[in-house]
Parts: sequence; structure tokens; C-alpha cells
Amino acid sequence: MLEEALQEINRGTAEIIDIERITKLLTAYFDEGKTYTVKAGFDPTAPDLHLGHTVLLQKLATFQKYGGRVQFLIGDFTATIGDPTGKSATRKVLTSEDIVKNIASYTTQAFKILDENKTDIVYNKDWLEPLGALGMLELASNLTVARMLERDDFSKRYASQTPIAVSEFMYPLLQGYDSVYLKSDIEIGGTDQKFNLLMGRQLQKAYGVKKQQAVLMMPILEGLDGVQKMSKSLGNYIGVTDEANDMFGKILSISDALMWRYFELLSTKSLLEIQVIKDGVVDGSLHPKKVKEELALEITARFHTQDLATKAKEEFEKVHAKSQIPTDMASFTFNETIWIAKALVECKISASTSQARRDIKQGAVKIDQIKVSDEQLQLQSGEYVLQMGKRKFAKVKVN
Amino acid sequence: MLEEALQEINRGTAEIIDIERITKLLTAYFDEGKTYTVKAGFDPTAPDLHLGHTVLLQKLATFQKYGGRVQFLIGDFTATIGDPTGKSATRKVLTSEDIVKNIASYTTQAFKILDENKTDIVYNKDWLEPLGALGMLELASNLTVARMLERDDFSKRYASQTPIAVSEFMYPLLQGYDSVYLKSDIEIGGTDQKFNLLMGRQLQKAYGVKKQQAVLMMPILEGLDGVQKMSKSLGNYIGVTDEANDMFGKILSISDALMWRYFELLSTKSLLEIQVIKDGVVDGSLHPKKVKEELALEITARFHTQDLATKAKEEFEKVHAKSQIPTDMASFTFNETIWIAKALVECKISASTSQARRDIKQGAVKIDQIKVSDEQLQLQSGEYVLQMGKRKFAKVKVN
Repeated sequence: MLEEALQEINRGTAEIIDIERITKLLTAYFDEGKTYTVKAGFDPTAPDLHLGHTVLLQKLATFQKYGGRVQFLIGDFTATIGDPTGKSATRKVLTSEDIVKNIASYTTQAFKILDENKTDIVYNKDWLEPLGALGMLELASNLTVARMLERDDFSKRYASQTPIAVSEFMYPLLQGYDSVYLKSDIEIGGTDQKFNLLMGRQLQKAYGVKKQQAVLMMPILEGLDGVQKMSKSLGNYIGVTDEANDMFGKILSISDALMWRYFELLSTKSLLEIQVIKDGVVDGSLHPKKVKEELALEITARFHTQDLATKAKEEFEKVHAKSQIPTDMASFTFNETIWIAKALVECKISASTSQARRDIKQGAVKIDQIKVSDEQLQLQSGEYVLQMGKRKFAKVKVN
Repeated sequence: MLEEALQEINRGTAEIIDIERITKLLTAYFDEGKTYTVKAGFDPTAPDLHLGHTVLLQKLATFQKYGGRVQFLIGDFTATIGDPTGKSATRKVLTSEDIVKNIASYTTQAFKILDENKTDIVYNKDWLEPLGALGMLELASNLTVARMLERDDFSKRYASQTPIAVSEFMYPLLQGYDSVYLKSDIEIGGTDQKFNLLMGRQLQKAYGVKKQQAVLMMPILEGLDGVQKMSKSLGNYIGVTDEANDMFGKILSISDALMWRYFELLSTKSLLEIQVIKDGVVDGSLHPKKVKEELALEITARFHTQDLATKAKEEFEKVHAKSQIPTDMASFTFNETIWIAKALVECKISASTSQARRDIKQGAVKIDQIKVSDEQLQLQSGEYVLQMGKRKFAKVKVN
């Protein structure tokens, strides 16, 4: 049991700090039924989750299977102020009403993955506001400017003379203080949160919390292109509220390599089950496309229903059955990753790269029968059928 | 009137920012009797004032003569936290009781210079505490880390890797916010406070105060040695609570050059009166020693009474009359500033510099009949009579 739990907890993680603490917590759960707390912070400024956000939720769900109570932390204290990540100086400040609405939408989506009975939704305004002006000052005395400037994004911004407001130095401290107040046993977050997650440990020590939280970091999920992080602004995302048909189709569009990544980070299949599937693909008894369909069905069903997922699959097959692919077509080979627009020109499908981009924008371009939406797409090594409209085809091989 | 007021306000100042604003305020006072506010912050962590502190008070008193109401700001908000100057990391944290006691002692001393009827004692806890945690965060969003690190002491400490707590970045902001809340028209402080004083202007603008405060900076007063800043820890200070005899004696011990400096910064004599005295010394009608006695009388009377000051003078003369100085003695000339202990050895008065230092410690060494207390004393250019005990004398000339 413990061995299996640790394997599932380790699954797909980028880094764990203080695995001994986690092992002890799990042992106490298996031996004595003792539960423990796992904290994760969520930003209520964006109401819609995409699959990238669910990587953390899946991991929290794993902990819930093994005695963890989730502290689902809503960062509402800083939400009324502006950008807590420092990435955008002009991020719009939200009203309390916006935030309430966002949180409702956010948690509804999250409970498609998390066990509501093992989740405490907590709002950091409840303990950060009572800190008061003096409490804030005392909190700020716990860290030096030099240490703060070691944080990766701060050091880069400082070096490039991009302004950092003094208030931004407070955010990691506030996040750390959340762990003090909540006495969290474990905190999980993305790898980009390492500094802030460690701050929780440091402040718990400074404020006399007996045991410091273990920290578990998940990697950032790649988007549909398989290269950049999944993000709404990059357009390479699968939204949790996407229609079933869209969701299914988008998942079918990913590369085989990305498919295994999504299995690891997004599927609820056990590691053993996944290994069986992988072996099937290797020995030829399973076709990769079938496996991808299975993944698409699982994820679509999670956010909709099994029924809607099945219908999405049927609809997908019906639509794509219509467009027949010719048996013989021109073949092209490229010796390195190539930009889709360039490939279209080289294959004599588009007259120019700017024309190719317009074609993509209009939805006329497909790869392996799936519509291309990203005009920046890079074709990685593999074999593809490029298509424009009903008539133009080319077989492409990227080495 | 305006001309004279501006001259007295300019007297001894190191720098004024926005003299136009000050001129307008004075004009409105002279023309319409309108008053205005002049803010100065005081640190309640040290209960005893020395003459160095009174330089600011004298300037405030000058403003009071010309329509200014003094905002005597007690920094009690940060006093319970620790060192607001960042100079000492281990400064003792005061209890509220300590602070109340210190403030009482502090203001009693200050009202020997300031007009109590034109002074409002204000405590920044009254408006900084209600700022709350969110207010502090918003305040901190008004300045960038880079700008803060430009502050002289911060940049030095950062460069030398001396830790700066993040909370220290809040202090200039808090001081600036005091000016926002108080809507101060003018703020005065030492030259070492320039960054913080300008912060008041910046924050007043950011928070929508109609007119930004003018800023007036006073130089740091030199101590008895005439070189280093007057400070308790350097032992070169005249305390406001020093006994009348000590005060009188200490002032008589200063060099002629320092005497004029003290006239400028500490005397309430007008610039015109001082010029008359200076002219008298130049044309020989006034002896410098008499002038120094006059200064010593004025200052001693300010912190004690006219009567006690006169008695101090008589006592001083009686004591020093006893020790007769021989008419002929050995003469020595030095071509540069020389350390007192070295001079004693060179003049064959002490056997070694270490012996000389012991002699000074025991109070056996005098210069011009005044006991030397500082064993690090440097003899500046001038003529002196060195003396040890009743018998050893030397005439010294430093070029």
C-alpha cells in the first residue's frame, strides 16, 4: 500500500522536498488512519480552468485517496489588488463580486476532479486581513531583499531593469504565511512556484509551527503543440468547459509523444494500467490512434459525461470519414523541424507563407485530418498528411 | 519681512527643495495671516536629546516665528518593531511604556526651544495602524525595488552583502505616508533623510494631495572635536540635560572655527547680530574667548536658566584661575594635524602614547586649561597650551 501510494504521488512530479515527511504522513495514515493536510493555492482572477490547471488537481486527488485533506486556498486577499505573479503590470483589478463569481465557477470545475468531502475551501483574506499593518511589517522582517532578488523571475526583471514594485516582495511572504496559519503538512504547486513554496517552510519555522511542510512540485503541462506551456493566451489549450466535441477533437490532435505525457499527468489510470497499454503499442497489438481515443474518451467523460464523450467520438468519426484522402500524393522529406506555413509552401500547397497563414486562420488547413489552429505550429519529426480544402494533399516526413 | 524670513530659513541649511512653495506660504502668512504646517519626525527610541538634535528644533522654531505650525511627529508605529534606520540590526525593541516615558522626556526637552502653542504632537500609529494589511500592500505598490536600492545606505549595504530586511523598504514609505495623512506643507530633516523626505512628495502626489510638501534639509552638527557628527556613542556630544557647569565648560572647549558653526546652527541671535560679532573679532575689538563665553552663556541659559548659566561661568573662571600658567615654556611646531597623545610625547610631556592615553583617561591632561576627555582628539591648526598635572607645560603651534 505505502509503496503504491508513494509511486502514485511521485508520478509525473518534478521535485519533492522532504519526502521523509510525506512517507511519515502516509505511514501514519495506513497504520492509524490519521489524516493530514495538503495545501494548494488558486488564483481567483481567471474563472476558467484548462487541463494545465488540472495537473495539480489530479495530484491533490491522489493525496485524497491516501488520507490527505485538501486545503483548497483561494487567494482572495491579493485578488483585489492586482497581479500577484508580477507578470503583468496592467492586470485588471477585480471587484469582490467578480471574485465571488469566479470562485463559484472555479470550484464547480475543480470538484469534477477533487473529492468535495475531503476538501476545505479556505480564503486567505480571513487571516491576512487581521494581520494588520504591524503584522505585515513583522512578516516583511522575515526575509532579506537579497534573498528575494534571488528568486528567478525577480532576478531576471531586476537585471533587465523591468520595474518590480516593493509590494511584489510581499506576495511570497503572504503565501508562506498562509502555510503558517493553516499549519499545512504538504503544499503542492508548479515548478515555477518553488521559491514561494519554500517560503512556507521558512516562515512556518520562523513562526514556530512544529513541523515544516513538505513540498511537491508538478511540471508545467505542455499545450497542444507539445512545446509551449498550455495557456489561454497561446491558444494551445483544452479548456475544462470546452464542449465535448471540441475536447475530444483537440486531444486526438496531439502527437503520440504528448499523448504519453498526458496519460502520466492527466489520466486516472494507474501506472500499471498505463504500462500495459504502452506494452501493447510496442508489440503492435494496440494502435496508437486507438490509445489516443481512449485518453480522449476518459478526459472528455470526466468533464462532461460518459455518454457525451461517446457521442463526441462518433461525431468525430462521422465528420472525418467524409473527407477521403487520396491514395497517391506527392511526398516531401524535411531534415529538421519545420514551420507549418513554410512546409505548406515547400509542398506547393500554398503560394507563400503569408498566404499559408491566412489559410490556417480560415480553418482550411488540416494535418492528419485535424484542423490546424496554431499558425506558429512547428512540425516535429514524424509522418503527416498535410491537407488544404478538399483537393490539395501532400505526404510529409520530418526527420 | 519676507526677505528676512527667507534669510533666517535659509540660514545653515544644506538644501531646500521647492523654495517657491516656501516663499508662497510665507507670502500668504505676511499678507493674509495664513498659517501652514511644518512636519518633522522624531524617534522615540532614545530619550535624551543632544545639541545635534536641536539644530532641527531651532529651524522649526524659526518657522514658528513666521506662521508655521509644527507637526511634531512621533514615530511610535515602528518603535515597537525595532530599528527604523536600518543602522543596527540588534537594536532593542521598546515596550509601549518605554515609549511613553521617552516621549514625555523628549517633548519636555524640545519645548525649551519650540513654542508649545504652535506645536501639534502627532503619533503616526493613529493613521498607520488603520491602514491595515491591505493598505500596507497598496502603499508598497508605490515604489519599485530598484528605486529603493538607489537609496544611499541601502545601495551600500546591498553592495557589501549586508542583509536588508524587506520590512526596511517599508519605512521610507511609511514616513512618506505620514506626509500624505498630515497634508504637510513643509517637511524638514537631516541631509541623511533626503530619500525619505522626497518620498513624502512622491506619495502626496500618488495619493492625490493637492500640493506637494517643500523639503528643507539641515546639515549634521559636528561634535566637540569639530570633525565627526555629534553623537552619544562617539562621546563628543553636549546633552540637553547636561548640568549647567558641564555644558558651559564643553562649549568653551570647542575650536574658534566650530564656534562660528554653532553660532549659525544653534544660536537664536539673528544673522545681523552674528555679523556684528564677527566684525568685532576681525577688527580686534572683541576677543574670541569672550565671544565663546557669550555663546556658552546663551546655550546654557536656554536649557537651564540665565542665573545658572552665569553661575556656571563664575565657577569655570574660579576653577581655571587656580591653575597658573608659567610665562615661559618650551615651544613646539607641527606642520599638520596631530593626535593629542602623539603631541604629548613629542613635547616630552608623556613618555609614550600609551602613557599619554592613560593620563588623558585619568583627567590629568588639559588644553588651554580645559580638561581633555577624548583620547582620540586631533589637534587642528592653531596655538595651544598643553598641560599635564600642575607642572608640565608646552606651547604648541599646529600649522
